[in-house]
Amino acid sequence: MINETHARELTSWVPGAESAGGEFPIQNLPLGAFIPKTGGPARLGVAIGDRILDLRAASEDGLLTGASEVAASACKDSTLNGLMALGPLHWHSLRLELSRLLRTGSDRRANTEPHLRRHAEVDMVVPASIGDYTDFYTSIHHATNAGRIFRPENPLYPNFEHLPVGYHGRASSIVVSGHPCRRPWGQLRRGGEPAPVFAPTEKLDFELELAAFVGPGNRLGEPIPIGASDQHVFGMCLLNDWSARDIQAWEYQPLGPFLGKSFLTSISPWVVTMEALAPFRMPMVAGPARVQIPGYLADAELARRSALDIEVEVALQTAGMRREGVRPLVLARAGFAQQYWSIFQMLTHHASNGCNLRPGDLLGTGTISGREPGEEGCLLEKTRNGAEPIELPTGEVRRFLEDGDEVIMHARCARDGFVTIGFGECRGRIEPPIACGNS
Amino acid sequence: MINETHARELTSWVPGAESAGGEFPIQNLPLGAFIPKTGGPARLGVAIGDRILDLRAASEDGLLTGASEVAASACKDSTLNGLMALGPLHWHSLRLELSRLLRTGSDRRANTEPHLRRHAEVDMVVPASIGDYTDFYTSIHHATNAGRIFRPENPLYPNFEHLPVGYHGRASSIVVSGHPCRRPWGQLRRGGEPAPVFAPTEKLDFELELAAFVGPGNRLGEPIPIGASDQHVFGMCLLNDWSARDIQAWEYQPLGPFLGKSFLTSISPWVVTMEALAPFRMPMVAGPARVQIPGYLADAELARRSALDIEVEVALQTAGMRREGVRPLVLARAGFAQQYWSIFQMLTHHASNGCNLRPGDLLGTGTISGREPGEEGCLLEKTRNGAEPIELPTGEVRRFLEDGDEVIMHARCARDGFVTIGFGECRGRIEPPIACGNS
Repeated sequence: MINETHARELTSWVPGAESAGGEFPIQNLPLGAFIPKTGGPARLGVAIGDRILDLRAASEDGLLTGASEVAASACKDSTLNGLMALGPLHWHSLRLELSRLLRTGSDRRANTEPHLRRHAEVDMVVPASIGDYTDFYTSIHHATNAGRIFRPENPLYPNFEHLPVGYHGRASSIVVSGHPCRRPWGQLRRGGEPAPVFAPTEKLDFELELAAFVGPGNRLGEPIPIGASDQHVFGMCLLNDWSARDIQAWEYQPLGPFLGKSFLTSISPWVVTMEALAPFRMPMVAGPARVQIPGYLADAELARRSALDIEVEVALQTAGMRREGVRPLVLARAGFAQQYWSIFQMLTHHASNGCNLRPGDLLGTGTISGREPGEEGCLLEKTRNGAEPIELPTGEVRRFLEDGDEVIMHARCARDGFVTIGFGECRGRIEPPIACGNS
Repeated sequence: MINETHARELTSWVPGAESAGGEFPIQNLPLGAFIPKTGGPARLGVAIGDRILDLRAASEDGLLTGASEVAASACKDSTLNGLMALGPLHWHSLRLELSRLLRTGSDRRANTEPHLRRHAEVDMVVPASIGDYTDFYTSIHHATNAGRIFRPENPLYPNFEHLPVGYHGRASSIVVSGHPCRRPWGQLRRGGEPAPVFAPTEKLDFELELAAFVGPGNRLGEPIPIGASDQHVFGMCLLNDWSARDIQAWEYQPLGPFLGKSFLTSISPWVVTMEALAPFRMPMVAGPARVQIPGYLADAELARRSALDIEVEVALQTAGMRREGVRPLVLARAGFAQQYWSIFQMLTHHASNGCNLRPGDLLGTGTISGREPGEEGCLLEKTRNGAEPIELPTGEVRRFLEDGDEVIMHARCARDGFVTIGFGECRGRIEPPIACGNS
């Protein structure tokens, strides 16, 4: 899996690609879609250093002829779905070609340079047409912490250790980093009151997640064996599963989260491919609570490289902090490698009943939390449902998010012997609710 | 709302349109999409009597010039999404033109006849690209009956009477009537056993539902006021929410139904438009349990015509019954007008948090059950979770569905002074599970 595109020695001629702490060195090459600020349809691009290579222009200019013909052709689309459908061999052919094009010493630099764009020249958009979005619930620490708030004696449901719990999310309201989050109205029942009211949420929260984009997928009725599952994951991005805890608490029985989540879901615009993540795969962590893994989710060989060593973090900057020039405060850092179920198990479980997954479908991991204080991936956990407010450097306190707050997520992979890569950011600022909510 | 297209006196020159008990008289004019058995892309059509008018051919032949230009143009698409996006004025212009074209005495009969097709010449397909599918839970009788099985002392959750409970369903696995239902594998826990097994479901069930297709919809962040909600419903079809009760029971906490539902959802191919349903709208039934309706879901004028007087029925024919020539046995009939929440309240509630609904999105009503025996819209209710098996004319018994069983749903609207219209059928036969399920 690890090949010349991961070599530590590789550098790029593109500005910013070699800066220390840069998220997009030539070993990363994440894919996305953008609309030029000058207008026109969405185009695909790859982030490299401080620039974006316009893949459509590069393909049309004959610079991707080392990639497979269908992969080079899919680079002219306005979404990544076509490329996602092709599978790992084609993905590799494109990555290798891009690596050779962009590396220091490439004899095609002069032809490539005209197709580089600055980030400020474009607006990033959701990189794929997402047919279905599924969100899982696979951090045992999150499930335990969140469960303890509502069911202290029995925080973890009995199914948690047997299958990756998941539910269908709303695809239409997935937006890309930077889109504001307008505080939603909804039915909620305030503590102690018998009747619900219709009001703007008073418990707006974030959830720190990663998400996997599905590759080729399966036909209806044909499950994906666990041994083949990693052929069907294209890449990963950050995901903020914005949540209105009071709306969710009132509506969720017996059918699960609905309007408490569907008002908005934000993702980072760059998809870090599974090939870029290859050096950061590691064995699954077998926690003490782990029961026998069911056979259809067990593959000993895959389990040795099913966990992804990705560190995620979430920071908060309030309007008050911006006014006083206070930098965003990191609220939590957690390691995705601790997740109880792997993305491959999520995918195979999802298709185990024959449900068809399509290229571009999105699988959220669920909130990523660790065991220790400072590793809580949402405010519900961190403030114990508001009981333990956070104190901010400005003297402000937060139980949940307030208007003007901005939530900023990052993720990165670091390992000795390899160049560190990043995911870019997933950012969103809370806007006040609309005036009347039709109430 | 009621206009010349509903007139009882209207007849059509198309064969079968006047037969007693026919589902597709000229007062109906439901829309769908088909692929000719000779091949080619999907085309839109309207069902009339025993025939289908090819809308693309009619539009290209200049036969729809009485409809609005954009509506006539949308008839050339391969899905209904374009037409759905246009809104009621355009829908009406097309319906009126079709009614005039197909009615007895039309001077365009000779030009229209070549564009009629027989049902046997085509395969019906899902009529719209369904971006998101939402399923509600709005029959108080179903909620009470099903709840009583699991929580006898407290069958109805407190939120039921305050909001239309719903959840996100799986869009990818929606198929059209006739598609077989392969028995899914899944994790389930058999009664009394502590550990789950991975096996084909032993509690396969149907759910008798209707579903509404969304029309223009709303932009992200902009709710749909209840007073405008009926501008956003295009039409209705039958829906069978196939359910694996044992998979569902094991997986559903805390996030709701997932793989117990997502293996397949069947819909009838013809969309009966809201204009065709206009004569069958009636006041909401105010049951004794109804609490104060929240303001954002209340509209006194709309409430007088929010219920739809549609009778739904579900029948079963086992392989044994087919062998012995026994006709399908009707298991349940129920009236949709008894539903606790209207489709307009479902839509407005769905968008109340700013969630964007898009043309072609599908809103399931949830199982439609009545209060009386013989009105249970699923086997879970009818057999009390298997405790009271059904006896069939062949001497067979059923607790849940067995391989070879076929489930057939119908719906119709009848009212004095108006011609009865039907929905066609939603049919699916159970196939045995795949051999190994990758277990």
